[in-house]
Amino acid sequence: MRLARFSLDGQVHNGVVESDRIHQLAGSFFDAVEKTGHSFSFAEVTLLTPVEPSKVICIGLNFKDHAAEIGQNPQDEPLMFFKPPSSLIATGEKIVIPPQTKKAELEVELALVVGKKAKNISEADAKSYILGYTIANDVTARDVQFSDLQWARSKGFDTFGPLGPWIETDFQPANKKLISRVNGEVRQSGNTQEMIASPEALIAYVSQNLTLFPGDVILTGSPAGISGFQSGDLVECEIEGIGTLSNPVA
Amino acid sequence: MRLARFSLDGQVHNGVVESDRIHQLAGSFFDAVEKTGHSFSFAEVTLLTPVEPSKVICIGLNFKDHAAEIGQNPQDEPLMFFKPPSSLIATGEKIVIPPQTKKAELEVELALVVGKKAKNISEADAKSYILGYTIANDVTARDVQFSDLQWARSKGFDTFGPLGPWIETDFQPANKKLISRVNGEVRQSGNTQEMIASPEALIAYVSQNLTLFPGDVILTGSPAGISGFQSGDLVECEIEGIGTLSNPVA
Repeated sequence: MRLARFSLDGQVHNGVVESDRIHQLAGSFFDAVEKTGHSFSFAEVTLLTPVEPSKVICIGLNFKDHAAEIGQNPQDEPLMFFKPPSSLIATGEKIVIPPQTKKAELEVELALVVGKKAKNISEADAKSYILGYTIANDVTARDVQFSDLQWARSKGFDTFGPLGPWIETDFQPANKKLISRVNGEVRQSGNTQEMIASPEALIAYVSQNLTLFPGDVILTGSPAGISGFQSGDLVECEIEGIGTLSNPVA
Repeated sequence: MRLARFSLDGQVHNGVVESDRIHQLAGSFFDAVEKTGHSFSFAEVTLLTPVEPSKVICIGLNFKDHAAEIGQNPQDEPLMFFKPPSSLIATGEKIVIPPQTKKAELEVELALVVGKKAKNISEADAKSYILGYTIANDVTARDVQFSDLQWARSKGFDTFGPLGPWIETDFQPANKKLISRVNGEVRQSGNTQEMIASPEALIAYVSQNLTLFPGDVILTGSPAGISGFQSGDLVECEIEGIGTLSNPVA
């Protein structure tokens, strides 16, 4: 099932995507899914980020090849950092490169969406706390990342968190391709098999450190192949079994 | 004016503190302040964190003496990092030391509360974007801070963000004492005069990097004298002209 948020006539709605239509839902994604009977074509609506998380937890260096390419050692434990909710944009929205950077880069990442409040969850129990999966682009000002002692600013600029297009609740994270493209040219081509910590292991790890709430998002790390983009480019992140997150660059 | 959030009979209310009573407000802190005519003693209510921010931005190493004591150089620019909203607790709530650390430490900090949406605000205009000031304790697992590449986890554990007791809207940040105590014994004794970047400079800097929303909080950095606390202790953070944030340790 593909869960999407959308706006129509200035109102925000929840929906479920079936082939080329969005069926409006009566309640939130965290209640029982109940259709209202109204449905819309994609042309009629504007897709929003599929959730409005209270926090976005990112896991750094969770693919060995990406850690190597930016000169970092893989960590003994998952490496947590945060992106601010103010950085999130939906598919179709424009990424704006701020004047603070000369090196904006993309990072396709599998993002898991938390389905219920989670604290000290075991890896064995983790699956039931995952509502589903979506796609994130952990856009990073690489020059700022290395000049600042912390990564908060370099990954926290407005529009540096494309997320979407929807949440796939039936997604199985094993052995799925992750691809990013700039103007149609492949830049990253990875596979979830290369991840060091699995999504279930990350729910366990993160929930030992802090409480997760419904709608919170965990970005599970980027494969190698990060590369830059510029004003006027089209940046796409695709994950097999979910879809494509597509953002023009202002 | 002292703005406080409180719970009473399971309901959340906004209020204004006048001497020893809390007067209920009809609307939010971001509307015109209008009393309902109901008021309560502190004994009747439970104080909550004075805001529920969409993000908590911290400024590291903004006091030269504290940077020195943890072996860091003061930065050329303010150093941003985030605490997750899930770490926040109110005055009176218990700080819980997680098993991941053997070195939980306190950091008294002046916290500014954003009053309206702010993006690319100049330092000259910044004051009108500040609703008021409150007190934060940027509790830090010092051992985890130095073992992790990023500070997110060490400063993001549940209960590691005491904030309150209220927002003082008439506070003038120049030349104010910041004091922290453990069981009544002074541990930090600083002054806002020692800050490198002023609150207005921080609104300007942060809003150049990301959009601030009403209720967002900026922690302006800790003076020297950080020190540890243990289970059973009482941790207090006091700022001249605001009040005292007091938290027992579970």
